[in-house]
Amino acid sequence: MPTINRNGVNTYYETYGKGFPIVFLHPFSTNGSIWTFQTFSFARTNQCIVIDERGHGRSDKPQQGYTIKEIAADVVAVLDAAHVNKAVFVGNSIGGMITLQTNLDAPDRVAGNVIVSSGTNLAAGMPPEAAQAFQKDLIGAFSGLIEGAISAKTKREQPALVDLIKSYFLVDDNFPKHVFRAAMEDSNGVFNWNIADQLKNIKKPTLVLAGEEDQATPVAANKFLADNIPGAQLKVIKDVGHFYEIERPSDFNNDLQQFLKQVSA
Amino acid sequence: MPTINRNGVNTYYETYGKGFPIVFLHPFSTNGSIWTFQTFSFARTNQCIVIDERGHGRSDKPQQGYTIKEIAADVVAVLDAAHVNKAVFVGNSIGGMITLQTNLDAPDRVAGNVIVSSGTNLAAGMPPEAAQAFQKDLIGAFSGLIEGAISAKTKREQPALVDLIKSYFLVDDNFPKHVFRAAMEDSNGVFNWNIADQLKNIKKPTLVLAGEEDQATPVAANKFLADNIPGAQLKVIKDVGHFYEIERPSDFNNDLQQFLKQVSA
Repeated sequence: MPTINRNGVNTYYETYGKGFPIVFLHPFSTNGSIWTFQTFSFARTNQCIVIDERGHGRSDKPQQGYTIKEIAADVVAVLDAAHVNKAVFVGNSIGGMITLQTNLDAPDRVAGNVIVSSGTNLAAGMPPEAAQAFQKDLIGAFSGLIEGAISAKTKREQPALVDLIKSYFLVDDNFPKHVFRAAMEDSNGVFNWNIADQLKNIKKPTLVLAGEEDQATPVAANKFLADNIPGAQLKVIKDVGHFYEIERPSDFNNDLQQFLKQVSA
Repeated sequence: MPTINRNGVNTYYETYGKGFPIVFLHPFSTNGSIWTFQTFSFARTNQCIVIDERGHGRSDKPQQGYTIKEIAADVVAVLDAAHVNKAVFVGNSIGGMITLQTNLDAPDRVAGNVIVSSGTNLAAGMPPEAAQAFQKDLIGAFSGLIEGAISAKTKREQPALVDLIKSYFLVDDNFPKHVFRAAMEDSNGVFNWNIADQLKNIKKPTLVLAGEEDQATPVAANKFLADNIPGAQLKVIKDVGHFYEIERPSDFNNDLQQFLKQVSA
């Protein structure tokens, strides 16, 4: 499977299927395999492009360079390499941020947006003790964050899924801890990135899917996106935390299918 | 992520984590992503090597060359490239066959075997009309086989999982149909491969996990393996069909964890 190299950094991606392209962008600390329940099902009708964002999985993990803008430029380079003119973007958490940044930097490449549990200017909503906890005990603090980011029903019924999400974070050759620190400290990285005043410039059809029990990017953070992106729709999902695509994959796939119909209609 | 090249055929693999190595070998028509719930969880304590077998996913898909022996040689070449001396093998369906063949051809590379829903000489157990159905309507017949290979509970509760398994098969750039035909026609391929009289030569600790509702490789086919491999244990799993690792990942991971303790004890 191919990689692109942009300014010395390799980004790994997979592409399966033919048809109108969909780009899948995963949450911070995971990798593209979180979309397994989407990749192959949608590849029956669409070209599915699944990217490991820099710092994750099978892509390079440089010491620095984790602004959302930088990663969005990697994604555009992947589209160029895959000869994809325009795609529906599906982004969860940081993947949603990369999606929105692409709308600002390369709007012609975007046909529509499905934003799953995301937000902007997250640091503003975090208590100051959170930043200190990350400094003192990164693994403990992030594990706590993940616990709060998964619904009670998922925790009860799918312990292997909770373990998977924690393990993505804990396995160093998937997600080395310098990536967390570099991204956290960056004034345009995952926590500090702030496009609140530019959301009005996003013109493509946008569906925001918020997990009702997500404490990492709560419903309010998602409602802010939907309220400020012209014409965006918000849907709040019961029994789901931060990871709708894998907590309730059947329902997620139905929602994505509906959105694809709207966009192509 | 790396590939090895053996006689002109590239085999893709991933490796995550450090510690005693585990090799994961997927079922026919799927790819290594079926092990997502194992790869990262076990990579916290073990080196997990996940291989896309030739003909599948991110590996090459030659027109011919699908004997189980050939694929087992690819797997040994992956171990060489990854500098892995010896590993626990975990193989589902054709992955179990490749595992058993490796026990015969390169026993020093195997520390133990977890065989998940597999068998030998499968063609002998198939009704003659099955072969005809595959000739006439491959997609219809194989879709029917998959329906019968997934438990009622999985079908009821996890429709996205049923769709994933079907889609692995239906997406041509994951699994082109010439691979099915070449493997089916080969006298040492997935359906005709027969090591019944060599099972007694397999000396490594072996656990056979059979899904109670699996109609593709029924309990009897798995019991035959356990009865004929010296010292092998059989465990029959309720509410599971052919794909225990993804139908009930939490329980599967507990069983694998227990087996790893026994092998290292």
